[in-house]
Amino acid sequence: MEFSSKLIEKAVNEIAQLPGIGKRSALRLVLHLLKQPKEQTSFLSQALLQMREEIKYCKNCHNISDNTICEICANRNRDHQVVCVVEDIRDVLAIENTGQFRGIYHVLGGKISPIDGVGPSQLKIPTLVEKVKNGHIVEVIFALSSTMEGDTTNFYIYKQIVNSGVTMSTIARGIAVGDELEYADEVTLGRSILHRVPFEKSFKNN
Amino acid sequence: MEFSSKLIEKAVNEIAQLPGIGKRSALRLVLHLLKQPKEQTSFLSQALLQMREEIKYCKNCHNISDNTICEICANRNRDHQVVCVVEDIRDVLAIENTGQFRGIYHVLGGKISPIDGVGPSQLKIPTLVEKVKNGHIVEVIFALSSTMEGDTTNFYIYKQIVNSGVTMSTIARGIAVGDELEYADEVTLGRSILHRVPFEKSFKNN
Repeated sequence: MEFSSKLIEKAVNEIAQLPGIGKRSALRLVLHLLKQPKEQTSFLSQALLQMREEIKYCKNCHNISDNTICEICANRNRDHQVVCVVEDIRDVLAIENTGQFRGIYHVLGGKISPIDGVGPSQLKIPTLVEKVKNGHIVEVIFALSSTMEGDTTNFYIYKQIVNSGVTMSTIARGIAVGDELEYADEVTLGRSILHRVPFEKSFKNN
Repeated sequence: MEFSSKLIEKAVNEIAQLPGIGKRSALRLVLHLLKQPKEQTSFLSQALLQMREEIKYCKNCHNISDNTICEICANRNRDHQVVCVVEDIRDVLAIENTGQFRGIYHVLGGKISPIDGVGPSQLKIPTLVEKVKNGHIVEVIFALSSTMEGDTTNFYIYKQIVNSGVTMSTIARGIAVGDELEYADEVTLGRSILHRVPFEKSFKNN
């Protein structure tokens, strides 16, 4: 696309670098901003700049935070002996929204994925292993997505802490609540039968 | 969604004000920016700010431009007697990409749409009427989308310049090149028969 304005072109090119936004969508967003008051654009760019400059990562769990220790790790009412291992802040948000977890998190920042060039050294695995070896932790819950990369990462961590006496578990895989059996894939359905739950347990904690 | 960081929350809320971007997508974009070098975020916000602050509109055709007269209007090789009436810069880009138009444009900035609260006074219609009445224009080509609003706008302008002796035309409606007849809607197919083109003309100018 050739633009009549270099300013538009620059803005479109910058927006189009974001994932999932092409040049056409970027132009649509730019034209939207032009129709809105100038303040909206300045608020937007200030929020982005400030976020990028001032964001911190929690020293304990590596989650995104405004302080050196995040709100969850700083909360004394939570069980600091149970650690849920997740990929990034989105998983923390998702699990927090369930209201079913009272422990703390450990945010790896990704999964081991040789194809994307992500090795164990780029992830926050050593601090997790250290925490486990220091004996502060009773249970590690693996809550990575059940892909090849997720399973590899789980197994890599497992091998390093298997002898430390910590309990390890993974979140349950199975048919989603409300889903029809006939549309479930066979791996998920198979796992849901293998890991079936005693009936009395199934209606507790709802 | 409850975020562990106010900075993230602010950035997400600002991005989610853009059309077609919800909070989930906004969070995905923010996390992407956090993984990229800081420069990318600062380039992005600078480009947006600069674009919003410094953008000008061409005095002649009201198209977005870096100067007071846009490149198209300033081009002496173009036919300034043929004016194509369009809604916004996207239509200018689309028509320019065809390479089939050598005239100039007149960008209305929208279509008459009472539902959205857009009346004729919000559009750049008076300057078009004035240009026509001054006798500088030989042909006006209406290239608005063929919706109720587009047709209303066309007709509103038509009524004001019908007595000025200018030639008026609309872009042809019909079956898209490469499309199957059986999937075309009946209005479009009907128009394509009504406004059929002499066969010799149909393979010229390709």
